Amino acid sequence: MAVHTVATPVALGPAVGLSCRECGERFDLGPIFACAVCFGPLEVAYDLPTGDPEALRRRIEAGPENIWRYAPLLPVPADVADKPSLNPGFTKLVKADNLARELGVTGGLYVKDDSGNPTHSFKDRVVAIAVEAARAFGFTTLSCSSTGNLAGAVGAAAARAGLKSCVFIPHDLEAGKVVMAAVYGGDLVGIEGTYDDVNRFCSELIGDPLGEGWGFVNVNLRPYYGEGSKTLAYEICEQLGWRLPDQIVVPIASGSQLTKIDKGLKELIALGLVEDRPYKIFGAQAEGCSPVSRAFKDGHDVVRPVKPDTIAKSLAIGNPADGPYVLDIARRTGGAVEDVTDAQIVDAIKLLARTEGIFAETAGGVTVGVTKKLIEAGVLDPSLTTVVLNTGDGLKTLDAVAPTTGPSATIRPSLDAFRAAGLAGS
Amino acid sequence: MAVHTVATPVALGPAVGLSCRECGERFDLGPIFACAVCFGPLEVAYDLPTGDPEALRRRIEAGPENIWRYAPLLPVPADVADKPSLNPGFTKLVKADNLARELGVTGGLYVKDDSGNPTHSFKDRVVAIAVEAARAFGFTTLSCSSTGNLAGAVGAAAARAGLKSCVFIPHDLEAGKVVMAAVYGGDLVGIEGTYDDVNRFCSELIGDPLGEGWGFVNVNLRPYYGEGSKTLAYEICEQLGWRLPDQIVVPIASGSQLTKIDKGLKELIALGLVEDRPYKIFGAQAEGCSPVSRAFKDGHDVVRPVKPDTIAKSLAIGNPADGPYVLDIARRTGGAVEDVTDAQIVDAIKLLARTEGIFAETAGGVTVGVTKKLIEAGVLDPSLTTVVLNTGDGLKTLDAVAPTTGPSATIRPSLDAFRAAGLAGS
Repeated sequence: MAVHTVATPVALGPAVGLSCRECGERFDLGPIFACAVCFGPLEVAYDLPTGDPEALRRRIEAGPENIWRYAPLLPVPADVADKPSLNPGFTKLVKADNLARELGVTGGLYVKDDSGNPTHSFKDRVVAIAVEAARAFGFTTLSCSSTGNLAGAVGAAAARAGLKSCVFIPHDLEAGKVVMAAVYGGDLVGIEGTYDDVNRFCSELIGDPLGEGWGFVNVNLRPYYGEGSKTLAYEICEQLGWRLPDQIVVPIASGSQLTKIDKGLKELIALGLVEDRPYKIFGAQAEGCSPVSRAFKDGHDVVRPVKPDTIAKSLAIGNPADGPYVLDIARRTGGAVEDVTDAQIVDAIKLLARTEGIFAETAGGVTVGVTKKLIEAGVLDPSLTTVVLNTGDGLKTLDAVAPTTGPSATIRPSLDAFRAAGLAGS
Repeated sequence: MAVHTVATPVALGPAVGLSCRECGERFDLGPIFACAVCFGPLEVAYDLPTGDPEALRRRIEAGPENIWRYAPLLPVPADVADKPSLNPGFTKLVKADNLARELGVTGGLYVKDDSGNPTHSFKDRVVAIAVEAARAFGFTTLSCSSTGNLAGAVGAAAARAGLKSCVFIPHDLEAGKVVMAAVYGGDLVGIEGTYDDVNRFCSELIGDPLGEGWGFVNVNLRPYYGEGSKTLAYEICEQLGWRLPDQIVVPIASGSQLTKIDKGLKELIALGLVEDRPYKIFGAQAEGCSPVSRAFKDGHDVVRPVKPDTIAKSLAIGNPADGPYVLDIARRTGGAVEDVTDAQIVDAIKLLARTEGIFAETAGGVTVGVTKKLIEAGVLDPSLTTVVLNTGDGLKTLDAVAPTTGPSATIRPSLDAFRAAGLAGS
């Protein structure tokens, strides 16, 4: 296979190049994201530390309590932990016994709660890796298009890393989200148009001298960025005592996170860090944006784009780039892809809050709701160890639950009024 | 000294009783909070594991990555880590080199970032300890009066612990805060009146059969609850490599947190876990609610109550119960108490976000703002190791920064429009 080389080679730990997921063509590490031969997506290729699994395990366990403990498996320089970073990751894997009782799960139910990340979503993981790539390629400005979580993650990470940032958003975003995107002091640009218009504009900018020196985390840094999701797989296995879960339920937006979790699990097996045995990966979508679920149920290999209409806005990608790969993984592992209605999402957010004290973003409502639905349908086996991802924080999507969440009673400040409300001893 | 005993002794680890902070009278562990002799506040008395400091240090370091690693120093049962809890604590101690450069700090500046707790404020620490006391005393309902952070912390902790909860709030709280308080599924009661009315009502309820079996975390469980703040001191020292900071800047609401941090530092010295050398504690208030700062500057020992008027609502206690103790600690350690205006609070929130990617609650703006002011005044020594507390999350106080935080530009999706905006290469 030919290898396309770049002028200045960079050192990103065990990463040895990029390879095309479609045709296998190899490229040197660089700020490129599409295969020059077939236009397929590029992903990072590694020379991983095979050899003594025990030594690798000890090295990881002696590392910092964040994603950099897995630096030997990531496209980052060896001294990454010494650089200014938000240091995301190693979020709680919560043993959810109360939720398990409600859902009838007997084999152990866990919630991987990524609301514990610095800006309270899993995006901190992927952006942290993109920052290292940006540094390696000499970029001075970190950029992205976003409607929410990613904007805050990029702004915060750039501030801490000492990089400039310029984030592009649709001009009519809710006021709260604009504040979260702007507070870190980088440039924030409202674009008069839809999110698609914002994306198209960013693609133009990458090819223009105006965008020189700019790393767009989810475009020209995408191959590196995506690898951050592998850390979810690593952490889940390590937190289970270096054991694969039997079943794992992952939300689907572009589908990248699910494919990288699968990649991470396969790496741990190949490296001898976990026992090689089957696991099933389940994908979760909102009914109002369920192109992958639709294709799975119809037995199709291609994903027909849809126009999203759901409260789960962080998952509302109507044309998911990694959809076909998700279908392949769900089928190959014996998993499934399912969707839930907006009402079921809200119910699931409340169910998780009521049972485990975790207030999830709508995306967490999607995974918990799909888990419930798949158990009731007999697709997910309640006697097996199951991990459900919560990728964001309910504080960012208050509107989803606000209409149906309020006081039990409003009373005058008197014991008589409280007695009349009938809440004591309830 | 007489010891007042209760019918059923409880086991709360190294806690051996309660003692009056004023007259020293001793009481058995129980759900009481005021001295029966002099009405002074009660606090937990310990039989701490003096002996081999190295063994204790190793035991702590081998513990879980949350506050329960310090169980040998807290009023909790020995098996506390096995019980369902939100497991707060061990939040990041961020080395804030960018902020240090801006403030001219050369001795090492750190931000203890408690926005990383499960419900994103330090309240998770104190509530987690109160839950253990509630369990020990056989309470089945967890309760509190609150205008914000505490409501969410109590609702979430009770849900996870399998306790009922009933939280009382002023009826006219902002919609977002009501959602956060209600989403965990416990009872939430709006009281037609001010926060003072809510408090008075709760005190009535404790003395009434209606409140039987109820643990009010900040009233009849207050002696235990308050001890949770000691863990901030423990973590800071451990994260500094078992070293005392030279200076620490703490926000003042009731003043309890500051006094417990001092208590925690003194315990570490007494146990031989850190070297015995001087440290200075600084208190931070908002100008619009600065009774302790006022008393400090006037050289008074008593704190004259004020009517709060500040954006730092989580610190807006006009009659701080621990005010006199705070004055004593600030003076004894060579620290100070200072206040900043609302505008300075907003500037400080943005400064921290821009330099370190940490989006703080208004209380964090108060501590960072006071740190800046004290350095400029020559009171805080920039050549010494300094720790600044951020006790909450900016997502909960978006209104504070919203009026002055927004897009750099709003443009059509074209390169010409972007060029005209003058942001590229900026």
